[in-house]
Amino acid sequence: VANEFEFIDWLRARTPAASRVLVGPGDDCAVLTPGERPQVVTTDMLMDGVDFIVAEVGPRRVGRKAMAVNLSDIAAMAAVPTSAVVSVALPKSNNFSFAEELYLGLRDVADAFGVPIVGGDTNTWHGPLVVTVTAFGEATERGAVLRSGAQVGDAIFVTGPLGGSIRGHHLDFVPRVREALALHAAVELRAMLDISDGLSADLHHICERSGVGAVLFADAIPTTDIAQTMENPLERALGDGEDFELVFTVSARDAAKLLREPPVPVWRIGEIVAKGYWLQTHGERRELRPTGWVHTTT
Amino acid sequence: VANEFEFIDWLRARTPAASRVLVGPGDDCAVLTPGERPQVVTTDMLMDGVDFIVAEVGPRRVGRKAMAVNLSDIAAMAAVPTSAVVSVALPKSNNFSFAEELYLGLRDVADAFGVPIVGGDTNTWHGPLVVTVTAFGEATERGAVLRSGAQVGDAIFVTGPLGGSIRGHHLDFVPRVREALALHAAVELRAMLDISDGLSADLHHICERSGVGAVLFADAIPTTDIAQTMENPLERALGDGEDFELVFTVSARDAAKLLREPPVPVWRIGEIVAKGYWLQTHGERRELRPTGWVHTTT
Repeated sequence: VANEFEFIDWLRARTPAASRVLVGPGDDCAVLTPGERPQVVTTDMLMDGVDFIVAEVGPRRVGRKAMAVNLSDIAAMAAVPTSAVVSVALPKSNNFSFAEELYLGLRDVADAFGVPIVGGDTNTWHGPLVVTVTAFGEATERGAVLRSGAQVGDAIFVTGPLGGSIRGHHLDFVPRVREALALHAAVELRAMLDISDGLSADLHHICERSGVGAVLFADAIPTTDIAQTMENPLERALGDGEDFELVFTVSARDAAKLLREPPVPVWRIGEIVAKGYWLQTHGERRELRPTGWVHTTT
Repeated sequence: VANEFEFIDWLRARTPAASRVLVGPGDDCAVLTPGERPQVVTTDMLMDGVDFIVAEVGPRRVGRKAMAVNLSDIAAMAAVPTSAVVSVALPKSNNFSFAEELYLGLRDVADAFGVPIVGGDTNTWHGPLVVTVTAFGEATERGAVLRSGAQVGDAIFVTGPLGGSIRGHHLDFVPRVREALALHAAVELRAMLDISDGLSADLHHICERSGVGAVLFADAIPTTDIAQTMENPLERALGDGEDFELVFTVSARDAAKLLREPPVPVWRIGEIVAKGYWLQTHGERRELRPTGWVHTTT
């Protein structure tokens, strides 16, 4: 996580009203000062054998992922993360250093974004490791960005290359908090989410909620180096999950502005249309499934 | 849960500024309006085989307990519950009605206190049932009540009879939200928590955080009907956990006021002293252990 500490100062300077902690762990509840702007809240539960294999990756990377997936949801609203609480079920077979490593992993990512862990619930049991993080954030003066605001004619962007996340990126990604805030300051983000189910599935969520369709330009979709070593990089980029890049839409005018002066790296990958869900290759449109598969019969 | 719906109106009338939901489930985060007063946050994770046995009690009672233990923490701060998020890991072996019953149980208790469930994360896996609730509340104009405010000379009270909770009360209790607010409106609550580890252990937390001691009057501690059918009702009341009654301290003057005009049923069970931790029976003091055991050698 490079340069994140500098970023925290920038972030705090932008959000003087963000909630501060009055009382942390040790009482029945944490107590936070109220913010001035709407608060955003997200929760994600990660389980051993489903979201990670702790015997293979170790507890520290699990802790990092558990915090990062939640901050990624805060980023998807273009909000400033303010605090988090953590509940864990620790397998009894593990020693104290297991719990400590898990906590250090949570702190690695939380600290990188100036997010205090203000409370939690620590349990042990005979079952596998479970980690639940609930993260809080505060919308900026522009308001929280929802999934429902995409309009016909909007350009569709992503914040980074996609595909092959299972090879390690799904554990080690940096949540796009900085990128979301920089973009939201530069232009009007009309609809946004973070890619967890896969580009094709997640963009389809935006279309459904906004009552619109979309066309993706096959040649414009950036693929990761890892995906390029795999059999079909484009299918990986469309269908793989847990990229945790942001996909968002802006007006044509704002798109031109973003391409001229991008505050962070962005890729223009498609356009919002009135109806349908399409993948366009060399001018030819084929129907795209939300799973990332292309409908090949004509 | 009798008369709780009437209570909601009373509660809402008292807290016009309490956070309202702008955007509920369906986006990456829920969006809440900021409250005017400090916000309290708590999280509790409940696991099958540890906090309940779902095969014996069914998913609906599990859902009720998962919400109730969190609202009990909000009550312990004398705050008004405002919203909650829920994460679950559902065993794959169960059908849809299992998840529905669990959710209905969560709603039973949440609805009784006007608490919207504003977001969540639903997962399935091959492990046992895990439920994490994170609940939010807003302090009243008197502020949140902490564990650290007990003073020498304070009277110690509880809101109900104790002991034998394992026979069913730990699943079906009503969180003392109403009682906490009524008491906090009537007098100055100096220190409070909800009894989860057992009266003796939890009152000891208040003493440690406040830097004081306590003496409990054995004859004054109310025991449940269930505890009275068990071998040593007083030991059950001191040592059993999960009563989820409130234990709190007030000044001697406020104690007299509470005993004269109790806004809700309360039992005066002891007194805060400078040092030591004692159980007093017929004028004789014996050292009390935080576990609920009495030190019998002299």
